[in-house]
Amino acid sequence: MIVQKYGGSSVADAESIKRVAKRIVETRKAGNEVVVAVSAMGDTTDDLLDLAHAVAPIPAPREMDMLLSAGERISMALLAMAIESLGHTARSFTGSQAGMITDAQHGSARIVDVTPVRLREALDEGAIVIVAGFQGFNRDTKDITTLGRGGSDTTAVALAAALDADICEIYTDVDGIFSADPRLVPKAHKIDRITSEEMLELAANGAKVLYIRAVEYARRHGVTLHVRSSFNNNEGTIVYNPTGSEAVVEEPMIAGVATDLSEAKITVVGVPDIPGKAAQIFTLVAKTGANIDMIVQNVSAASTGLTDISFTLPKSEGQQVLTALRADQAEVGFTGLQYDDQIGKLALVGAGMRTNAGVSAKLFTALFEAGINIEMISTSEIRISVVTRADTINDALRVVHTAFGLDADTEAVVHAGTGR
Amino acid sequence: MIVQKYGGSSVADAESIKRVAKRIVETRKAGNEVVVAVSAMGDTTDDLLDLAHAVAPIPAPREMDMLLSAGERISMALLAMAIESLGHTARSFTGSQAGMITDAQHGSARIVDVTPVRLREALDEGAIVIVAGFQGFNRDTKDITTLGRGGSDTTAVALAAALDADICEIYTDVDGIFSADPRLVPKAHKIDRITSEEMLELAANGAKVLYIRAVEYARRHGVTLHVRSSFNNNEGTIVYNPTGSEAVVEEPMIAGVATDLSEAKITVVGVPDIPGKAAQIFTLVAKTGANIDMIVQNVSAASTGLTDISFTLPKSEGQQVLTALRADQAEVGFTGLQYDDQIGKLALVGAGMRTNAGVSAKLFTALFEAGINIEMISTSEIRISVVTRADTINDALRVVHTAFGLDADTEAVVHAGTGR
Repeated sequence: MIVQKYGGSSVADAESIKRVAKRIVETRKAGNEVVVAVSAMGDTTDDLLDLAHAVAPIPAPREMDMLLSAGERISMALLAMAIESLGHTARSFTGSQAGMITDAQHGSARIVDVTPVRLREALDEGAIVIVAGFQGFNRDTKDITTLGRGGSDTTAVALAAALDADICEIYTDVDGIFSADPRLVPKAHKIDRITSEEMLELAANGAKVLYIRAVEYARRHGVTLHVRSSFNNNEGTIVYNPTGSEAVVEEPMIAGVATDLSEAKITVVGVPDIPGKAAQIFTLVAKTGANIDMIVQNVSAASTGLTDISFTLPKSEGQQVLTALRADQAEVGFTGLQYDDQIGKLALVGAGMRTNAGVSAKLFTALFEAGINIEMISTSEIRISVVTRADTINDALRVVHTAFGLDADTEAVVHAGTGR
Repeated sequence: MIVQKYGGSSVADAESIKRVAKRIVETRKAGNEVVVAVSAMGDTTDDLLDLAHAVAPIPAPREMDMLLSAGERISMALLAMAIESLGHTARSFTGSQAGMITDAQHGSARIVDVTPVRLREALDEGAIVIVAGFQGFNRDTKDITTLGRGGSDTTAVALAAALDADICEIYTDVDGIFSADPRLVPKAHKIDRITSEEMLELAANGAKVLYIRAVEYARRHGVTLHVRSSFNNNEGTIVYNPTGSEAVVEEPMIAGVATDLSEAKITVVGVPDIPGKAAQIFTLVAKTGANIDMIVQNVSAASTGLTDISFTLPKSEGQQVLTALRADQAEVGFTGLQYDDQIGKLALVGAGMRTNAGVSAKLFTALFEAGINIEMISTSEIRISVVTRADTINDALRVVHTAFGLDADTEAVVHAGTGR
């Protein structure tokens, strides 16, 4: 059994839908059971969002999910029709019909159970099954929910896990996962195989092809992904879960480099260097629901007994965090706040760096030689991230890509499209 | 409790949706429980049909219903959002969530049961309830169905019956039911009250404002309709089910005149005038599924023993009936077939004609004096229909409207829009 996911750009219009239908039929003809998760056509979701905001300044979340779920209903029905007109049996199912059960968090619901009873029946009758991506339903409220950004990837992975599929193919408008964004690094190379752990770090640090949640779900449930283009038949990138000796043998030192310009840096200046102050600050921040990424605390200047604490977070969450901190400035006792939204983040990812010393040194040297200043550093077992000025991030990306021997011999072909 | 139905032209864009939301909130503020059935926005359904035919020459009916039902899902969610942003609680429900249970006939499903449990709960919690018109689901196949043309009217009437509403308001883009189409007869007057029986005859004979199925449903379940404009606050037309003395007292002789240019006439020439021949012909016709309207058999010419039989039917069904008749010409023994698609039909409707002699005579006289030739005549207890040449039908409409004293003192205001 193969689960396939087609994104919005792969089903943007009638011609694209017919092309995807042919590809699905070929997969069926090759002897596979086929289950397809499909996104809304092209810009449908954005158009629906525009309509919602035109009728209501702050649309009710339950109704927003009811509205947005119409997008996949359209694309899945059209795809099923197109397959049927090729002489194969197809049946489309909404999230609730497919047994995609979620919590009640409208707009970013989490899958709590998958009960694909109707899908199994349809497969047993020989049908190709088309499922609306991105949507589910809550058993208690009986309301429709949506899974949030990247939801269709998550739908596909959850179906693959629940139906015990051999592989989950994620079709997109690029050829796979690249060692860096090929629009920024023309010599980026397509990665043939990458561990889900590395993929998680790349996705968390700005790589847009796969969403974190889907990769997490795949890792937790042992689902192997194949990220590939719906515009050709090239092999894409396999995202796998290494077991036993694989974990050591197969991993190259560095898998890829990702960059991210969506974050800002807040510096809390003049924090009394006494125990509990950092906890106090980040408790305040946590109450806003903001997603903190990197945190750096400078060494305290002995003469003043004050220190600075900096952290990064999505720009969209910057103002609310500043407001929260200002409100409690007297109580915490810091002297000021700095806000900087001109930063860029670069992350070097590779499971192989676990067993390789000198990766940090090589990274810092490459950036130094290019005259790029490093403002913050953060590391995990398989990742090193640095913050630089935003206007130097693309240069940083290219020199690091070259320094770690990631450049391909030829330039990557970049397809038109969103990269999503 | 008031059930309201808003058609596609009433919710064509964000501004219209906000306007309709305000009207619904006003109805709620006046102390009513409010249930709303809503159609898809403007041209949504046509756009979805175009997409379907672009991906599949003959789209699978199950998938077509899945596709089309997305249209109301969009409009109802937007309408619920717009109401919520006015500070009132609203909740939208799909056909299946609303308990609109139908048979399995995709594209023209019939309602077999209405179990509005969730609607009742939402109403008891003080919410305004928005229901997707036009759609339901089948309990056996668990599939989504659609009710076919005029389905949203039927949804509204079925909800009004199931919830025992005081009235079912059908909002449209005209001021109500007119004594004739105001685009054809500028002096047509708006009818204040009309019986459901008369309304049925007008709808069956070409009046487009209400669909036959919805009127039938309202008559069978004793639902009173109020057909009115969503663009102003004028009283529209009450469609009621007279009881007891009302039936005699209230009914004017003539309610209105309808015309229809969508039919054709087939004449079977030279049919042997022996028993059973008409039955043989109409058995053949019935097998094609065609909807026969008027039937006229000429008096047999004694000298030949042959007669002609003419009947009218929708033009779209003409060719298949001709083909069926030709195939069995030898067996039936007629000498030829004539096909005429240049006919017009005029129907004069009024419950009062039951007790008024001379209506036919007055009708025929008016047409004769205008030089209009009558080709076929058919009557029911409350209707007289005549067939004329297509190019004389509008003249016929105007002279008949005047002859029966239906002209208003002033010209009707005709709104832009589809008349639907």
